[in-house]
Amino acid sequence: MNMNTIHSLQQQLQQLIDEKTKPVGALGVLEQIALQAGLIQHTTKPAIIKPHILVFAADHGIARTGLVNPYPPDVTAQMALNFINGGAAINVFCRQHQIALQVIDAGVQSDVAAETATFIVAKMGYGTASYLETEAMPEATALAAIAKGRELVKQVAGTGCNCIGFGEMGIGNTSSASLIMSAVTGESIAACTGRGTGVNDAQLSIKIKTLEQVAEKHQLATFAHNPVALLSKVGGYEIAMMVGAYLEAAAQKMIVVVDGFIATAALLLAKGLQPDVQASCVFAHTSGEQGHEKMLHWLNAKPLLQLGMRLGEGTGAALAIPLIQSAVLFLQEMASFASAGVSEAHNA
Amino acid sequence: MNMNTIHSLQQQLQQLIDEKTKPVGALGVLEQIALQAGLIQHTTKPAIIKPHILVFAADHGIARTGLVNPYPPDVTAQMALNFINGGAAINVFCRQHQIALQVIDAGVQSDVAAETATFIVAKMGYGTASYLETEAMPEATALAAIAKGRELVKQVAGTGCNCIGFGEMGIGNTSSASLIMSAVTGESIAACTGRGTGVNDAQLSIKIKTLEQVAEKHQLATFAHNPVALLSKVGGYEIAMMVGAYLEAAAQKMIVVVDGFIATAALLLAKGLQPDVQASCVFAHTSGEQGHEKMLHWLNAKPLLQLGMRLGEGTGAALAIPLIQSAVLFLQEMASFASAGVSEAHNA
Repeated sequence: MNMNTIHSLQQQLQQLIDEKTKPVGALGVLEQIALQAGLIQHTTKPAIIKPHILVFAADHGIARTGLVNPYPPDVTAQMALNFINGGAAINVFCRQHQIALQVIDAGVQSDVAAETATFIVAKMGYGTASYLETEAMPEATALAAIAKGRELVKQVAGTGCNCIGFGEMGIGNTSSASLIMSAVTGESIAACTGRGTGVNDAQLSIKIKTLEQVAEKHQLATFAHNPVALLSKVGGYEIAMMVGAYLEAAAQKMIVVVDGFIATAALLLAKGLQPDVQASCVFAHTSGEQGHEKMLHWLNAKPLLQLGMRLGEGTGAALAIPLIQSAVLFLQEMASFASAGVSEAHNA
Repeated sequence: MNMNTIHSLQQQLQQLIDEKTKPVGALGVLEQIALQAGLIQHTTKPAIIKPHILVFAADHGIARTGLVNPYPPDVTAQMALNFINGGAAINVFCRQHQIALQVIDAGVQSDVAAETATFIVAKMGYGTASYLETEAMPEATALAAIAKGRELVKQVAGTGCNCIGFGEMGIGNTSSASLIMSAVTGESIAACTGRGTGVNDAQLSIKIKTLEQVAEKHQLATFAHNPVALLSKVGGYEIAMMVGAYLEAAAQKMIVVVDGFIATAALLLAKGLQPDVQASCVFAHTSGEQGHEKMLHWLNAKPLLQLGMRLGEGTGAALAIPLIQSAVLFLQEMASFASAGVSEAHNA
């Protein structure tokens, strides 16, 4: 669409929203989401069709050092199995809201299970290398992971889905996200580093010192505008796949639901490659992970939920999808002042 | 339950929550809601059954003066018809989430429609008197409305419902809510008065002056601890019925979902009659109506949603119910570390 068409569609959507039987603006943020959904889908009648969440799982070399994570790296594979068996929080919330769920082994350090319709084996390796010693992965692998993420989303789009969220599981991956956030936003490592799955004060101090060493070793600040280099040096396979997933979802004109700290760090990189990608994004929630609020502020993003959650897996996205559905449903289904015969305000 | 039993149940619930396959506390506010739901229902297996919203509609004498409201009072009846015809926001959100919806004519100034299974005629009058001149209703009427509210909730409980929210529609009723809030909390009228359905700056100034006169005329500050007197002097039929509805819902051990500014003002009065009622309440959202945040702070209540909504009708409650369902579902359905074979944290 050219700018005139966009402007005209925006005006039409705003008029439809304002004619609904409610005071102007009384549905708050839902009105903004309805408008955005219409603009993403290029229609005055946006709809949410077959919502879908992809959860990318992978291991991180750094986690084997025990310097940044209270849980052992084995937990990544154990939780991937938990997803397959339907016992994790993301399974519960996807069942509740009829959201399709697929789990991707992007590079877990062991073989988790055989591929099925809902468990996709797309290993880029058996865990990344430790970025304390070397780069996490070669640039070619980062690019291959981005391409795989794009391919997976293209397949989902082929099912008719137009609303997608991305989650992750990977012991140690808050550290990648902190390093990426610091490099891209210029915030200090300390400002970008939180407790992850739950390090205590002493562990947090070690985590920050470790990540400061990593940032220095790889000269990350000089790669603020080079997402592929950042992925190679300190990324993870799941984060790289999410980058590609964001890019393809935006290209497919999907509504993209952005989950928490790690998912938003991946978006920082996707935005570095394609600035327009954010126009397709609805931000699900502010994570309890320290640093996420600053990351959202840097993006000028206002998320739907503030529930103090810090679980990852796409759980924030799953809980936000019903609110996005509410936004498009009020636009589709509410009566207008004229159609319902309701008087308008004296000052309207 | 005695205090020992409550303490033991609380410990059991907390242990079940902490054993789920997630870091301790990682589901944030949902963990608190799961705990509260268990305590309300006296079980380690809380469930949400047949969620229900009652919307109470009534007119206010003050609205006929045009001093406090940009919409004409006719809109109350017009919107009640809109509810009956399924065209309002609350209809859309209740359909989306399979929430049963009943609308009660608690005292609309005209006859809206014949009674049906979902539209209950329980008129306490054809609009209240204007509290600029006299009391809004006799105390006997306030008591009768409270009793009717209790009766209606008892009927809903009889259907098996254990989770209920209350909404309202009444042109002018933010003024009643502001007056009640000021009397109960001791905050100034100006601090308790907002734009309602959308008064402009000049109208807001007139609204505040008018309500200051009303508070002075009826000496409302002296009735801070007399909810029935406050209902009689400046209440509304819908607000009085909501007071009874809260009391009965808590007595029935229902989970009570508190909507916005007016619904919370009614809760202030219900709490004045029965302090324990708040233990049964989950607060749905912070309304965009100025004053609501202060009211919630006074109650030490932390609502689930902050979407800038200010529509009433129970719309905040309807959007919050899926989150309450998510809370009880994770407790019911998530695997534990032991059952899923997931390793716990080193520092746990």
